[in-house]
Amino acid sequence: MSARMTIAIVAPGAMGSAVARRVAEHGGTVLTSLAGRGEASRRRAAAAGMQEAGDDEIVARAAVILSIVPPADALALAERFAAPLAAAAGAGPVFVDCNAVGVETVRAAGEAIARAGGRFVDGAIIGLPPKPGEAGPAFYLSGPEAGDLGLLAGLGLAIRPMAGAPVGAASALKLSYAGITKGLTAVASAMVLAAERAGAGPALHAELALSQPELLARFGKTLPDMYGKAYRWVAEMEAIRDFVGRDFPESAVFAGAAGLYARLAADAAGPRAETGTIDRFLGTREPG
Amino acid sequence: MSARMTIAIVAPGAMGSAVARRVAEHGGTVLTSLAGRGEASRRRAAAAGMQEAGDDEIVARAAVILSIVPPADALALAERFAAPLAAAAGAGPVFVDCNAVGVETVRAAGEAIARAGGRFVDGAIIGLPPKPGEAGPAFYLSGPEAGDLGLLAGLGLAIRPMAGAPVGAASALKLSYAGITKGLTAVASAMVLAAERAGAGPALHAELALSQPELLARFGKTLPDMYGKAYRWVAEMEAIRDFVGRDFPESAVFAGAAGLYARLAADAAGPRAETGTIDRFLGTREPG
Repeated sequence: MSARMTIAIVAPGAMGSAVARRVAEHGGTVLTSLAGRGEASRRRAAAAGMQEAGDDEIVARAAVILSIVPPADALALAERFAAPLAAAAGAGPVFVDCNAVGVETVRAAGEAIARAGGRFVDGAIIGLPPKPGEAGPAFYLSGPEAGDLGLLAGLGLAIRPMAGAPVGAASALKLSYAGITKGLTAVASAMVLAAERAGAGPALHAELALSQPELLARFGKTLPDMYGKAYRWVAEMEAIRDFVGRDFPESAVFAGAAGLYARLAADAAGPRAETGTIDRFLGTREPG
Repeated sequence: MSARMTIAIVAPGAMGSAVARRVAEHGGTVLTSLAGRGEASRRRAAAAGMQEAGDDEIVARAAVILSIVPPADALALAERFAAPLAAAAGAGPVFVDCNAVGVETVRAAGEAIARAGGRFVDGAIIGLPPKPGEAGPAFYLSGPEAGDLGLLAGLGLAIRPMAGAPVGAASALKLSYAGITKGLTAVASAMVLAAERAGAGPALHAELALSQPELLARFGKTLPDMYGKAYRWVAEMEAIRDFVGRDFPESAVFAGAAGLYARLAADAAGPRAETGTIDRFLGTREPG
């Protein structure tokens, strides 16, 4: 196995460790950093066959660093690697920001890496963490260095370089895709709740069943799946609001979705009043 | 033909005249008012076999009045019929507000009719104007008098009484259904435009084609169909914002959709810049 088959994935969260497992299955070596992470991360990393390494060792050995962290940590991670990348004087790995961050944030991360003389690619992971026997999520890649990442395909990852697209485009793709899928979930939740408040819930369900059966079937999955994720979607909706831009009135669509998800997250963790109403509308729970 | 087979439809717009034609095909007589309407309405009424009548004659002869007017005119029409209904002393027709108005507006219309001693039903038409050989739209009906309208089924209309639901529930159904379908169109338009501004349009199309083919197929119809209707949807989105209520942050979803539709209406009537971008995204127009 050549040194070019070594990559780093920081950090070993649910997505990062699942990607690492896929890479290891394809003969790759995956380094990771456990700095600041707890015991669960350590166990996940070990179970996925990841090797702990310091930042200097990662820069010395890895061909690529995949940054897969919570959105709020993305810029800080890029800035943390600027110093070791500067020390490598252009011979270090390509730094790929795979996180669900706004366009401005990913550009700032790219500038931090570029100032250190490093190479930077904007990445967007669309799909769920890879599972054995499934294709796994798509890795969209944009920026001038995106073509340098063909080795990831050999490591079992479904890469989709965006020809000619600048840094920011992959993040824009992720935001706009999430805006459609999670925006639809917000629209549906808002209308189900308002219809139920007005006594029109059963008729709305009946009319959707007749004239929009595909949407109703979708809601039966996507709305209950949302409850446990709504707390994470608040910041994502706010990032989409900023991505649209305050000059466009439709940015309010996503500000409103953020407010709804904040309330539903609290409800799902507590009284289950509104989420219970949605469940009853969908017929997934007995009338109460 | 008994007098009970005579109804009134005010006014003879695109929906009203198409409904009248359906009723006439089923042996009904349809009266209408042309007060304040132009030559196009007169021609549509004549072509649909509608008979012009004054308000007093309508109240004297019709079993039902279907109010089918632009939302802004709905309350005024109910108030206009209050005096002739009061003169009929309870023997007049049932007044059915079929318009896409907010819950408060339909309640005010109902109170105006009730004060005059008349009977009132909240109606909501879901679907396109009836065409020959097609089932036609659904007429949802709510309020205590909704059960009195069985005769409309005999006249070829697909009525759906909402058992036990109060005045306001049919309008709430219409608003929540429109909020889902037209809200989804707004979400998709917003994200397509933002993705295109950021250079991510082609990748968004490719990812939707792979992982959300039903949604993409839907957008290919619903987005272009929206351009010519966006000017009407502005007030409807504002009515949905009020229906949700300012106390709920998700009302901003529909305020944002109203702003978007106002801009797209102006664009569709003029430069075709953003609507042209959507067309290119969908592949319905050559790259430009």
